[in-house]
Amino acid sequence: MKNTFGTSVCVTLFGESHGPAVGAVIDGLAPGIAVDTGFIEHQLTLRRPYGNISTARVEDDRFEILSGVFNGKTTGTPLCIVIPNENKNSRDYSETRTLARPGHADYTSYAKYHGFEDYRGGGHFSGRITAAITAAGAVAIAALQEKGIFIGTHIASCGGVKDRSFGDLEKDIRELNGKLFAVLDEDAGEKMKTAIAAAAEDGDSVGGILETAVAGMPAGIGEPWFDTVESLLSHGLFSVPGIKGVQFGAGFDLADAKGSIFNDPFRMEGDAVVTGTNNNGGINGGISNGMPIVFRCAVKPTPSIYKKQNTVDFIEKKDAEIVLKGRHDPAIIHRARVVVDSITALVLCDLLAQRFGTDWLGGAV
Amino acid sequence: MKNTFGTSVCVTLFGESHGPAVGAVIDGLAPGIAVDTGFIEHQLTLRRPYGNISTARVEDDRFEILSGVFNGKTTGTPLCIVIPNENKNSRDYSETRTLARPGHADYTSYAKYHGFEDYRGGGHFSGRITAAITAAGAVAIAALQEKGIFIGTHIASCGGVKDRSFGDLEKDIRELNGKLFAVLDEDAGEKMKTAIAAAAEDGDSVGGILETAVAGMPAGIGEPWFDTVESLLSHGLFSVPGIKGVQFGAGFDLADAKGSIFNDPFRMEGDAVVTGTNNNGGINGGISNGMPIVFRCAVKPTPSIYKKQNTVDFIEKKDAEIVLKGRHDPAIIHRARVVVDSITALVLCDLLAQRFGTDWLGGAV
Amino acid sequence: MKNTFGTSVCVTLFGESHGPAVGAVIDGLAPGIAVDTGFIEHQLTLRRPYGNISTARVEDDRFEILSGVFNGKTTGTPLCIVIPNENKNSRDYSETRTLARPGHADYTSYAKYHGFEDYRGGGHFSGRITAAITAAGAVAIAALQEKGIFIGTHIASCGGVKDRSFGDLEKDIRELNGKLFAVLDEDAGEKMKTAIAAAAEDGDSVGGILETAVAGMPAGIGEPWFDTVESLLSHGLFSVPGIKGVQFGAGFDLADAKGSIFNDPFRMEGDAVVTGTNNNGGINGGISNGMPIVFRCAVKPTPSIYKKQNTVDFIEKKDAEIVLKGRHDPAIIHRARVVVDSITALVLCDLLAQRFGTDWLGGAV
Amino acid sequence: MKNTFGTSVCVTLFGESHGPAVGAVIDGLAPGIAVDTGFIEHQLTLRRPYGNISTARVEDDRFEILSGVFNGKTTGTPLCIVIPNENKNSRDYSETRTLARPGHADYTSYAKYHGFEDYRGGGHFSGRITAAITAAGAVAIAALQEKGIFIGTHIASCGGVKDRSFGDLEKDIRELNGKLFAVLDEDAGEKMKTAIAAAAEDGDSVGGILETAVAGMPAGIGEPWFDTVESLLSHGLFSVPGIKGVQFGAGFDLADAKGSIFNDPFRMEGDAVVTGTNNNGGINGGISNGMPIVFRCAVKPTPSIYKKQNTVDFIEKKDAEIVLKGRHDPAIIHRARVVVDSITALVLCDLLAQRFGTDWLGGAV
Repeated sequence: MKNTFGTSVCVTLFGESHGPAVGAVIDGLAPGIAVDTGFIEHQLTLRRPYGNISTARVEDDRFEILSGVFNGKTTGTPLCIVIPNENKNSRDYSETRTLARPGHADYTSYAKYHGFEDYRGGGHFSGRITAAITAAGAVAIAALQEKGIFIGTHIASCGGVKDRSFGDLEKDIRELNGKLFAVLDEDAGEKMKTAIAAAAEDGDSVGGILETAVAGMPAGIGEPWFDTVESLLSHGLFSVPGIKGVQFGAGFDLADAKGSIFNDPFRMEGDAVVTGTNNNGGINGGISNGMPIVFRCAVKPTPSIYKKQNTVDFIEKKDAEIVLKGRHDPAIIHRARVVVDSITALVLCDLLAQRFGTDWLGGAV
Repeated sequence: MKNTFGTSVCVTLFGESHGPAVGAVIDGLAPGIAVDTGFIEHQLTLRRPYGNISTARVEDDRFEILSGVFNGKTTGTPLCIVIPNENKNSRDYSETRTLARPGHADYTSYAKYHGFEDYRGGGHFSGRITAAITAAGAVAIAALQEKGIFIGTHIASCGGVKDRSFGDLEKDIRELNGKLFAVLDEDAGEKMKTAIAAAAEDGDSVGGILETAVAGMPAGIGEPWFDTVESLLSHGLFSVPGIKGVQFGAGFDLADAKGSIFNDPFRMEGDAVVTGTNNNGGINGGISNGMPIVFRCAVKPTPSIYKKQNTVDFIEKKDAEIVLKGRHDPAIIHRARVVVDSITALVLCDLLAQRFGTDWLGGAV
Repeated sequence: MKNTFGTSVCVTLFGESHGPAVGAVIDGLAPGIAVDTGFIEHQLTLRRPYGNISTARVEDDRFEILSGVFNGKTTGTPLCIVIPNENKNSRDYSETRTLARPGHADYTSYAKYHGFEDYRGGGHFSGRITAAITAAGAVAIAALQEKGIFIGTHIASCGGVKDRSFGDLEKDIRELNGKLFAVLDEDAGEKMKTAIAAAAEDGDSVGGILETAVAGMPAGIGEPWFDTVESLLSHGLFSVPGIKGVQFGAGFDLADAKGSIFNDPFRMEGDAVVTGTNNNGGINGGISNGMPIVFRCAVKPTPSIYKKQNTVDFIEKKDAEIVLKGRHDPAIIHRARVVVDSITALVLCDLLAQRFGTDWLGGAV
Repeated sequence: MKNTFGTSVCVTLFGESHGPAVGAVIDGLAPGIAVDTGFIEHQLTLRRPYGNISTARVEDDRFEILSGVFNGKTTGTPLCIVIPNENKNSRDYSETRTLARPGHADYTSYAKYHGFEDYRGGGHFSGRITAAITAAGAVAIAALQEKGIFIGTHIASCGGVKDRSFGDLEKDIRELNGKLFAVLDEDAGEKMKTAIAAAAEDGDSVGGILETAVAGMPAGIGEPWFDTVESLLSHGLFSVPGIKGVQFGAGFDLADAKGSIFNDPFRMEGDAVVTGTNNNGGINGGISNGMPIVFRCAVKPTPSIYKKQNTVDFIEKKDAEIVLKGRHDPAIIHRARVVVDSITALVLCDLLAQRFGTDWLGGAV
């Protein structure tokens, strides 16, 4: 389905970096979900370039809801959010049109679209489209919160600096969601920013690892094959530009380990079935077990660097060199985390609506 | 779509571990693909328990093709393969019915299916269903080979032992596909087997990391959002039991690194656009770039261990202890690799059929 | 999705007329639905050739449930039903292999599958596949009945003879579901049989019109665009071989009429909103309004007739004549009605499961 | 998938009658299709209210393409068209908010959305959304024309007046596509307009029957089950407001007839396989046979009439009377035909792209 994702709650994306607008249509949302435009703005702020460690292209991200909301609540019909592209500067890209920026989609885009693609600023491949995901995700995040389901993501590692692990999960999530640079340990955060600034100084970039936790997810959600919780989340997450790895729970770290270490023994905590460790990331057999869903995403270093790089002219089919101009991020990981939260929320809304019906998220059951 | 996966080429799974049969329906295959039952048998052999490092439950995996093949070739209509369950021993499971085996789906299955699930031997969550994936995948693997696309997976790491990396890719793939225990370095393989046997001796289990490479994939396949090559592969792979992480190219290893290291500069090699490094795993912007697609999967240690474990009785809602009986694998990684190959082949067939049309794989265009 | 249909409850078909078996996989059924094999047999009986007005190819329709049922109830996992092909006689078809039977799919099948299709007895296009739909539909019909939703179809017209209209709907439905030749007026039924026999005598065939009513459907089911109740039902119904028209309520009859006639004014009947007339067939704006869902299907005359017909040899590309041999039905309308009921039930289960969640049909909510 | 329809080429709808805008996203279009905004305007004109036989609400239908077009051609990425709602008058509807207009979706909408729906002017159920379908369809129609596939629809019957049948198909289609009131026989058209005006005078409305023909469709398109050409077309067509019946070829007219009449014998015409009659409407076994695809749609009389009608107050649950005010169409059939053409084009683009791949429509193969 290409640019549409989801079964019961689904999102459709559109837009190019230098076209009139980017946007998203969310379909299948329950009627009666409160839509707080202030919260959408807040979420868009989390994605916006930040301080001296981001691109100088700053946009207002003024958005307009074209449909699906009436009297401040979802109607149950498709909700279309449009974000006009305002601060665009197409001249930066034209002269390198035929040179494939390493790590970017210029060459693959040409291979797929035969030159008809809007190449300006990455076109439909641009991170700009994640503004639409963020706006759509804000509605989903708010709907989940009403149901007691909370999502938070921190920069677990960046430029060689590690953040502390999750502790008091609900408190950590609450705090993260107010931060522009989402770390649990502010000192670590400062060191990360320094590392990013140093890379920027050098015309280079850095990547890192995001860790996400979802608190309050009920047990019994997901499917045993194909539509496992891991499958659907990874499907969504791997479409966030720059994400090259997704792991749940202990993932790669304990892959080599023994079962007696990895297994999460169950115990009762009052009426609830819980586990002590959470190496399975809250998912057994593809289905949520009631523990927090925990996963990490590898975010590759931003491919836009200012160093001279070897490449090819993919139309003339010859070797070439390229030096990027324009405005680029030395790191996107701090901006990517709200996109990860958004995708996560959309996927979980979809799974919950499939299980409990299309009214459930709106409170009408 | 739960147990159905794919858009143009799709597979539907059915079956329980102790029911009459497991099976798969592949729909959307081009007409005219040669179906070699000997090759399907070969692939099923690769999945079968192996030596003293696997379960004692050995099945013939006798399969029957019920539809979709005529005169040895696909007709273009749904191909249903059924594999009867022959060597099943349901008595092993009944007495622990209400005790959640740690790391297994007993509790989540109960949370989802309210006790109506067939709990014997893991029911529909059983690794037994991967026999059906393997049989279906064999047809897809063979179809891709006719188009010059080759898939190979090796055990990159197991029980603390590492295999060597891919070298001469086509040669490595060819050799791997003939091996029951898929390593590039036989010495490393022997050490892995020793580690598995030692864990088994101790009533424990081990996991590991599989690395897969696809040679011959054309550039321009996949979508920029949602149906990226990474998204679709991970969607499929995360439904293989035990897989808890998927990473493409350098993935988590270089996530923290600098862009100048991670970027894969392009160069011409004759008429072909290639990259020197392949940290992006053959995928830029979600779309294949013509380099080998390379990814790794974290396979958690088999949850079935013979040590006494804490758990709960999820019906009586009280703490309990469990000691597993029956026949279990101390490792499944060597059996899982053919399942990974199969899922990979099915996903790539789907992507190629979407791009080039439903006839392409059969050679009728 | 080709041979798979549905969103939350979906069915996948496979099989060829002269292959080993036909079958269906139903996925997404709630756990806990009683599966009565006697009722499945009963439904298959309704589809079976009947008296002297059907083909002489009579099959036992012995079926086997391979998965998804445990202790007599659905597990919630895919339910695969297989019906082996027993009384097949492939010799009848071979000599006319390259001659397109008028009204049949021989030529279109060749145009699509390039000659790789299993042409024997219509292959995957055969009405034989409707046995699988009928078996799958039986489970859906029984599940709906537990929820107070009843489906019945009668032969409204056949060979120029008209049946009476629905009267006491629940009584009519109950009686129809016990009849091999489904008419409300037995005299009309006898005349229809006479007309069929006369056509058969003449080497010809007849068609007719089926009318279906669904009692007990709640209001508020369906979607405003694309997944309207009419859209989904017609999507399913138009894949029943021979159906060339579908109309809801007054359909074509009052299309030309005035709004003041066609509109169905509402009134209260106790607590229920009802309409006096039902020209909209229980559907307003694509969504059920609580009145019976009523529709009619045009079933074209069976294309298999014994008269000499002009045609082409589609491989040699030249004009030809054809005289069919083998065993054919002079009418299929009386056999088609249970297929219509089955498709209807599967579509309604899907719509209800989307609206109320995946547990609803099983009674676990 | 609710408001999204299609597999390879798919369309997503959004908007409410009195919200900021209606719109559509078309995804999966081949790159390189020429997008002629003049032609989109032309198509929107065909849908616009007409003379004294339409509503007085006239809109400019000024549209904006937000994405997916670059240098006048499709890029291959999602094409979003937005049509702002300009001439809206919400006061007309508020006082009858709780009274169900007979034949409209007020009550079913309430049953589905629990009162959160935007009820003004029919909200998301409004015919206004068909402007978005028309704009999206214009791109698909133009793409098909480049491939030699032409679609035309005429008013076969309206208010008791019949148009002549199709004759010289390509000429008829060409002429119809320039007409605001699409009849083949202008005299019949004048009589229809008179009948519509008479009904309007009387505060009433009329419906009719549309007949559509598609010339140039290649043989071999469609699927044997579920995704038959009839299934997909009817799925789309039944979501056009007011359509209550769809029949292909002879449909209901010859349902009762004999096979020897209904069958369409094949013959060679040069190198082409053709049939003399076309009772099967160009489709055998669900798959196109190369003859024109011909179908008819029953369009019910507009439910908005000015006569006093009985109804209910669905919130207070009591009987009531309603007299509509506002601006309504005494007939929509002449406006609906371009919507039918548009849906037809979108479905055929989808089927062709599945069969021949995603590049085919753009000419890049």
